[in-house]
Amino acid sequence: MIDFSHTAKNMRSSEIRRLMKLAADPSIISFAGGMPSNDLFPIAVVDELYNGLDNKTKQIALQYGPTPGYPPLLEELKKYLISRGISLEGQELIITTGAQQALNLVAKVFINPGDCVVAEYPSFIGAIAAFKSYDAELLSVPLDRDGIDIDALKATMQANAARIKMLYLNPVFQNPAGITYSDERKKQLIEVLKNTPYCIIEDDPYSELYFDDADMQKCTPLKTMAPDLPICYIGTFAKIFGPGLRLGWLLGPKDIVDKCELAKQSMDACSSTFTQVLAYEYLSKGKLAPYLAWLRPIYKRRATLMLDALKANMPPGVTWTIPQGGFYVWVTMPSSINATDVLNKALAKGAAFVIGNAFDPQGVKNNTMRLAFSFTAEEKIAKGIAIIADAVRELV
Amino acid sequence: MIDFSHTAKNMRSSEIRRLMKLAADPSIISFAGGMPSNDLFPIAVVDELYNGLDNKTKQIALQYGPTPGYPPLLEELKKYLISRGISLEGQELIITTGAQQALNLVAKVFINPGDCVVAEYPSFIGAIAAFKSYDAELLSVPLDRDGIDIDALKATMQANAARIKMLYLNPVFQNPAGITYSDERKKQLIEVLKNTPYCIIEDDPYSELYFDDADMQKCTPLKTMAPDLPICYIGTFAKIFGPGLRLGWLLGPKDIVDKCELAKQSMDACSSTFTQVLAYEYLSKGKLAPYLAWLRPIYKRRATLMLDALKANMPPGVTWTIPQGGFYVWVTMPSSINATDVLNKALAKGAAFVIGNAFDPQGVKNNTMRLAFSFTAEEKIAKGIAIIADAVRELV
Repeated sequence: MIDFSHTAKNMRSSEIRRLMKLAADPSIISFAGGMPSNDLFPIAVVDELYNGLDNKTKQIALQYGPTPGYPPLLEELKKYLISRGISLEGQELIITTGAQQALNLVAKVFINPGDCVVAEYPSFIGAIAAFKSYDAELLSVPLDRDGIDIDALKATMQANAARIKMLYLNPVFQNPAGITYSDERKKQLIEVLKNTPYCIIEDDPYSELYFDDADMQKCTPLKTMAPDLPICYIGTFAKIFGPGLRLGWLLGPKDIVDKCELAKQSMDACSSTFTQVLAYEYLSKGKLAPYLAWLRPIYKRRATLMLDALKANMPPGVTWTIPQGGFYVWVTMPSSINATDVLNKALAKGAAFVIGNAFDPQGVKNNTMRLAFSFTAEEKIAKGIAIIADAVRELV
Repeated sequence: MIDFSHTAKNMRSSEIRRLMKLAADPSIISFAGGMPSNDLFPIAVVDELYNGLDNKTKQIALQYGPTPGYPPLLEELKKYLISRGISLEGQELIITTGAQQALNLVAKVFINPGDCVVAEYPSFIGAIAAFKSYDAELLSVPLDRDGIDIDALKATMQANAARIKMLYLNPVFQNPAGITYSDERKKQLIEVLKNTPYCIIEDDPYSELYFDDADMQKCTPLKTMAPDLPICYIGTFAKIFGPGLRLGWLLGPKDIVDKCELAKQSMDACSSTFTQVLAYEYLSKGKLAPYLAWLRPIYKRRATLMLDALKANMPPGVTWTIPQGGFYVWVTMPSSINATDVLNKALAKGAAFVIGNAFDPQGVKNNTMRLAFSFTAEEKIAKGIAIIADAVRELV
């Protein structure tokens, strides 16, 4: 018999598969999936872009591409990153098979079994899974409404200085907390990080999805504010075009990203040239800005409906974050309530979300839930929240 | 400063990037890239398939998909595998981001640092890279024109019994050797493997690309012939549709493939739904068979031209394999000749190939070269081979 009980020991069970099923069930109002609803994808734009390709480009689209990415896409993406205020000096950019691969690559390059990664509490499930798949130990530092708790971060770093390899941060419209680091907090964080030898992953999937233009400045990446820090900046087309393209990117110090490129070569050789060609056309033909302009008020309305429904329905003692963009509201219930019980009751009545312990790097705390407003049609939001609030009320 | 000198230590340098550059240089006749030439891709078929999609399917194409793959594609692929005589009983199938990811996933699940993988000599560069990226030790067993040397395999297995985790085999139109295991050799191999506890990877990218229908039977997978062995069978759309889709598959014992699915979840979450939708349409609309029927005689002509040119130009003492399909001819020169010297001379005169030591699991033997006939237009083949033969002649 084949024995592999000793390997792959820290991989999480297939949470995504379950969420996809819930999301696909028309009888369930799902706030579970961290994804756009299907009707929001720019399919007419894709038609136009695909049918505008010449035959030579279609041939390139079906061929292998260089491991770092389709060169015209890399050039367009560099222009885009510069427009976000990011300096490319000393940096290398590669295209990845989704932001998930970028996380995995940095983890592969840095983590030896037992190394520590500092993550926010709560933190993105996919990042936790990537770090654990290399047998990292996760240390978590709580978030408040203005960002990571600086004193707790300092204490964690001091207590584990020799074992820490990386910090993983998602400062804008954080998944799952929905909060955004304040300018002040970002500055304090940068001060702390200046004196550390660790690689910093800045995961930034949502920062284009602010609700109000006035909040755009809050979305400035750490990478822009602290060009000298060793920040691996991760972005994705998933939230600004479509997740099905499986295209993300990693921008970081050249010596790190070169190692990641080698790791990618043995991981999948290159990302889909076909979808990279579409992404290049999308950026170079100026399709991003109008799509975002159309998308932002839609997400703002969905968020507003969700927040209004929470206010109208949740019992006292339940609190939630107020996002200014992104996809998520994070709900905290009295500590006596277990989100799994809430979920079971809610599912029976037709609503779904993701229980909080999925986002706890320690996998424990579970009086919390993540509600994604991105996936759910406006007319269903109030009803879905009422179902979940009823379930909470039964358990208070 | 960030220290990661201790990690990622066994990753190979970016050979693919160099080969892509050579392949893209119009002044070089390149036999280096193991890929179809761009003019062979079925772009009219892709046009037809894309423009036949309804809007609902286009939306699905832009969305996340389940980690194991787009369900309609999995169903079509199962029908295809059954048509190849493969039993699905007790097996699980997942879609991977190219065959390269399938190799990497099995390696991730099985290999701990220092574990041994038995590979053919010569062996596929991408597989070697995947195994080494998990710090495997590679043991190599020579191929002859009928397949792996059974006595040498037995000896290697006996000498390293406790340390071996996996065998990696590419029995049909082997990359880079171009040979195909005889029926007799396959049967001997299966007898040997019946008594071993090891996972067996059967990499099978080329078996649809036989030159003559009469040879079809030789392309029968080990997986078909030995359904009870723990074979992880890896296939790809790269050679039967287009590498730019980045779609491969892994079929193997359920307990193994379930672990691979978990690993994939933290590696890239899912493969591109967009290209999976196209691959589904391609299979379900019956586009594969006519494309292969068109493609086979083209590759046969290219191979024939290459073999004729080798015969006409190579000096005595140089031998090569005679492929009956696939992409490759493997050339062995007198042991005094270093393929790197040949390559440098050939490049200066406008022809390229891959030097043999890239395919040596030990990275040593270098009196060999891989010539891919798949990428090069008919009218250039004789000229390119003449350049390489001249280079060899100068060094004999």
